[in-house]
Amino acid sequence: MKTTFYTATTLDGFLADEHDSLDWLFVQDVEADGPFGYDDFIAGVGAIVMGRTTYEWVLDHLAESGEPWAYAMPAWVMTHAEGLRTVEGADVRFAQGEVKQVHADLVEAAGGKDVWVVGGGDLAAQFAEAGLLDEVVVSIAPVTLGAGRPLFPRRFDLKLTELARNGDFACARYAVVGPRT
Amino acid sequence: MKTTFYTATTLDGFLADEHDSLDWLFVQDVEADGPFGYDDFIAGVGAIVMGRTTYEWVLDHLAESGEPWAYAMPAWVMTHAEGLRTVEGADVRFAQGEVKQVHADLVEAAGGKDVWVVGGGDLAAQFAEAGLLDEVVVSIAPVTLGAGRPLFPRRFDLKLTELARNGDFACARYAVVGPRT
Repeated sequence: MKTTFYTATTLDGFLADEHDSLDWLFVQDVEADGPFGYDDFIAGVGAIVMGRTTYEWVLDHLAESGEPWAYAMPAWVMTHAEGLRTVEGADVRFAQGEVKQVHADLVEAAGGKDVWVVGGGDLAAQFAEAGLLDEVVVSIAPVTLGAGRPLFPRRFDLKLTELARNGDFACARYAVVGPRT
Repeated sequence: MKTTFYTATTLDGFLADEHDSLDWLFVQDVEADGPFGYDDFIAGVGAIVMGRTTYEWVLDHLAESGEPWAYAMPAWVMTHAEGLRTVEGADVRFAQGEVKQVHADLVEAAGGKDVWVVGGGDLAAQFAEAGLLDEVVVSIAPVTLGAGRPLFPRRFDLKLTELARNGDFACARYAVVGPRT
């Protein structure tokens, strides 16, 4: 049972550009059932957590595409804001404060499956700082942006445990070691 | 005959921390004769070019360690500054202005071997913008820094051509495709 930050990133460490666009991501080739693919990953996930910016990006994307909410498992959204939109079919729980209590709730809801920290990078780093993040799994797109939303805005040591190519992506799994002093 | 930006980077896309330190780099395990290793790479290089900050970092490092200048081939340093230090045994040529002329000089000096853009990221990006950079080859250390000297501060599309592990590093070779519009 792990807590994993699973994300795509650019080679220069951005999750999205300065306008929160993922245009650079969706043009890349990937096999959902290939190494590090989404299908296998999501099958092992029992609860997810994301920050407000990520959540609002997801809702905007659904509104534009007409797609339904994609997550069958309960989702926590960490936010200090009130009155965020909700979406039909989504089991979404708004939370604030310490990540420790939220993590306990996530683990309980996951029922023995893994917890997915969807993003952004600052939220993932908060989990890591609290000693609650086991893995960082990145699919590195062959793109540089030079600016945007940072992957993991902290000084941290990781350990490479797996490396493979999937389509246009270099995919790497890291165990979280701890903060760099 | 290629022009290659060959460098180590953190997972979040920094070449050095905010104080130009590479402490995070030298603690990692790597085999110089392993995949993407330095020995094979440098054997194919006939001329090198670096920016002023990189050059001064190298000189400081030599002064601290007492090691000699490591490069047998001619080295260009792109700088607008006057009166930079030199070092015994180094064939260093200071240049400024357009990278196009400098690149022509590098290619001529390389005598059929490759040109190595040592860094930093902005200099590599200037070569890429001028259409003069063929490859970006990165050894990604299992570290995040959150801030520092950026790997490649531009919007660019690359193409993954090779991926392998060497010690603690995920190593990837990219062909430079062109600027992202």
